[in-house]
Amino acid sequence: MSHPPEIEVIEDILELPTPWRTHHGGTLTRARVAYRIEGPASAPIVAALGGISAHRFVSGDRPGGWWSALVGAGRGIDTAKYRILGIDYLGGAGASCAADAGAPLPALSAFDQAAALAEILRGRRMAPLHAIVGASYGGMVALAFAARHAPLVERVVIIGAAHRPRPLATAWRSVQRQIVREALGRGDGAAGLRLARALAMTTYRSAGEFDLRFSAPPVREGDALRFPVERYLFARGEDYVRKYRPESFLALSESIDLFEIDPASVRTPATVIGVREDQLVPLADMQALAGSLGGPCLLVQLSSLFGHDAFLKEGENLKPIVERALAEMMQ
Amino acid sequence: MSHPPEIEVIEDILELPTPWRTHHGGTLTRARVAYRIEGPASAPIVAALGGISAHRFVSGDRPGGWWSALVGAGRGIDTAKYRILGIDYLGGAGASCAADAGAPLPALSAFDQAAALAEILRGRRMAPLHAIVGASYGGMVALAFAARHAPLVERVVIIGAAHRPRPLATAWRSVQRQIVREALGRGDGAAGLRLARALAMTTYRSAGEFDLRFSAPPVREGDALRFPVERYLFARGEDYVRKYRPESFLALSESIDLFEIDPASVRTPATVIGVREDQLVPLADMQALAGSLGGPCLLVQLSSLFGHDAFLKEGENLKPIVERALAEMMQ
Repeated sequence: MSHPPEIEVIEDILELPTPWRTHHGGTLTRARVAYRIEGPASAPIVAALGGISAHRFVSGDRPGGWWSALVGAGRGIDTAKYRILGIDYLGGAGASCAADAGAPLPALSAFDQAAALAEILRGRRMAPLHAIVGASYGGMVALAFAARHAPLVERVVIIGAAHRPRPLATAWRSVQRQIVREALGRGDGAAGLRLARALAMTTYRSAGEFDLRFSAPPVREGDALRFPVERYLFARGEDYVRKYRPESFLALSESIDLFEIDPASVRTPATVIGVREDQLVPLADMQALAGSLGGPCLLVQLSSLFGHDAFLKEGENLKPIVERALAEMMQ
Repeated sequence: MSHPPEIEVIEDILELPTPWRTHHGGTLTRARVAYRIEGPASAPIVAALGGISAHRFVSGDRPGGWWSALVGAGRGIDTAKYRILGIDYLGGAGASCAADAGAPLPALSAFDQAAALAEILRGRRMAPLHAIVGASYGGMVALAFAARHAPLVERVVIIGAAHRPRPLATAWRSVQRQIVREALGRGDGAAGLRLARALAMTTYRSAGEFDLRFSAPPVREGDALRFPVERYLFARGEDYVRKYRPESFLALSESIDLFEIDPASVRTPATVIGVREDQLVPLADMQALAGSLGGPCLLVQLSSLFGHDAFLKEGENLKPIVERALAEMMQ
């Protein structure tokens, strides 16, 4: 009879050596990264990184873990087999920080997040990682990490992130950022963030999902007619304002659009997962990435009504792909 | 030797009979529609209707005509052969009006625009129209007109407009309207309209066109990094603020999303033109429309990097299709 593995939790905030030079040439006089490691003490470590709003609480084994679809007991990244490393992004709304209180955030790069992650590993003498599984912005961080800190990771799984953003996605995010910038300028960042998040929601799912959910006619609210999709978008906007900071949104949204990497510089074995219905990261870009990576690569193509959000919703379909990616000797 | 045809120009503003009952149950105490008819005096009349920002100056034969790609001497709608009828939409930024000065605009429908057009024809005893060629919102007006005023039109050409909006398109427009509503609420409608137009521009073209035009890296502007696509979007936003009214934008954008028609109620011979790359009106919706119209119908499918804007940019490709649609006896 096997006993359940003993779960160890490490939660810490690492002060990064300053002055910290950012990828885009800035200097941070104060920088720290908050992280959390949870799992069986002797298990291989898997870093799990998500979109710009993700944070160090990853696993679905506890309430509030943002990647409950994929990470947890018996799930695609099985918390009985792997220790999960999660971080709060530099510049994000969590406990990490990338500037003195009140000071403006500099331009941040996925390479800066990768450097912070490398510092964590060195600080705890834990390297190399068994894997990084990164989706959306987290996939960019995983690519950056594999390129710059190759000895520190054995394999990467990239979901819905390519070697550079697509201009139409940059366009949507540019409008979101301008909305937030103007709102901050008049002292009402929350109003801007609410609108920006509503807009962002139109890009995360697929047109087909919206067809299925929101084909009902509008309803009257006072003098106005409200469309079902509109009520959904602004409800999500309201939720977001409660948990995210406008300044963090600006910095990390821009960080996505500043990302660019030569795929050939990534030699770490990679599993690349693209979603046909992803409006933000089209399958063609995932194919281009997979076709030009510098190491062994398996490209997996999925269909999902959830589009870019598939990584948050398609836990069952992703499970066998991610299990195999984590188990294989791919060298 | 043939002489050039004598061009007759009629430009007028018709007071509509009040109280004018709108399609959605409102009452207008004052309503008038501005229109312009230009062409050889005895030629068949073709009404040419475009997106919500279109107006009564249609032909490319004069500066400022909004449909220069398709309408003009020797073009798809040849102004040597047809008289062109253009209108300023009720609720729009032109010389039509749908409310007392300063009074809020009611919910307006494409059926209201169609009714105003029918009044023009009755007022001038000009019916029936040889054709209505309607693109985008103008296509909705053409469908509404054919359904409600069938004896007044012999054929319709519908470009990039279906029997109902797609929820993802409604989502994008809902965010645009909320941006403008909030801006009007704080007395700065122009700032909202600028952002809304920038967002709208991301939906009019295709992802492929943006790939071709905007793949260059960002440039530094003061403290900020600006992406090429961002500069484009906000330059278009600036232009738009100079020529359009926030209140008109709200009314006519909503009018698109309120549109719904039973295609079977349209028995007028129709040519339906869908663009594969149209993000706002997907080809599947154009196919569904064509497949359920109540009269004879020819569906033409085009590919264009210009997406929804193909009607403004693909004059050469549209020319043979539209020429044939206008020339044929389709009954």
